[in-house]
Amino acid sequence: MNDTTKARLEEFRSSIDNLDAALVFLLSERFKLTKKVGEFKRDHDLPPADPGREEVQVARLRALAEQSHLDPDFAERLIRFIIEEVIRNHDRIRGA
Amino acid sequence: MNDTTKARLEEFRSSIDNLDAALVFLLSERFKLTKKVGEFKRDHDLPPADPGREEVQVARLRALAEQSHLDPDFAERLIRFIIEEVIRNHDRIRGA
Repeated sequence: MNDTTKARLEEFRSSIDNLDAALVFLLSERFKLTKKVGEFKRDHDLPPADPGREEVQVARLRALAEQSHLDPDFAERLIRFIIEEVIRNHDRIRGA
Repeated sequence: MNDTTKARLEEFRSSIDNLDAALVFLLSERFKLTKKVGEFKRDHDLPPADPGREEVQVARLRALAEQSHLDPDFAERLIRFIIEEVIRNHDRIRGA
């Protein structure tokens, strides 16, 4: 790889790294909120998972993905991946 | 569930939905960039995956996750999930 090629690749990677940092901070806020929801559900004797809510979330994110030219299937797999982790955390909060 | 409980839960969910929309738009930008990287790699005969780069990304995101109180293991699983998709896209760009 010559120096120009390397410099161009580094430029792309620097922008990707910035977006990834934003992604981590955003997810951190999301998990702070879902932790509160988990505690709230425990205190009000509500079940950790809510399949109806999950399907609404998936449909909404698929539509947003289409609008922003992100692959809707990828968006769906990603939100399900995140929700699985949230449910695991809710079970933990509940002491299951 | 009584009305107060329902309203409180709805309030949490509305904030989660806003963060999820931001997440989709952020990922859309990330995939626009990695698409450019894929085309660039194809045009310069570079391999789609770069294991050295991947380990640097994982280590950096684990550190950012710790700083922001996000589970570093979750951050690692998530970034590997995203990178897998990127490599699949790069292979597709290359016509593999």
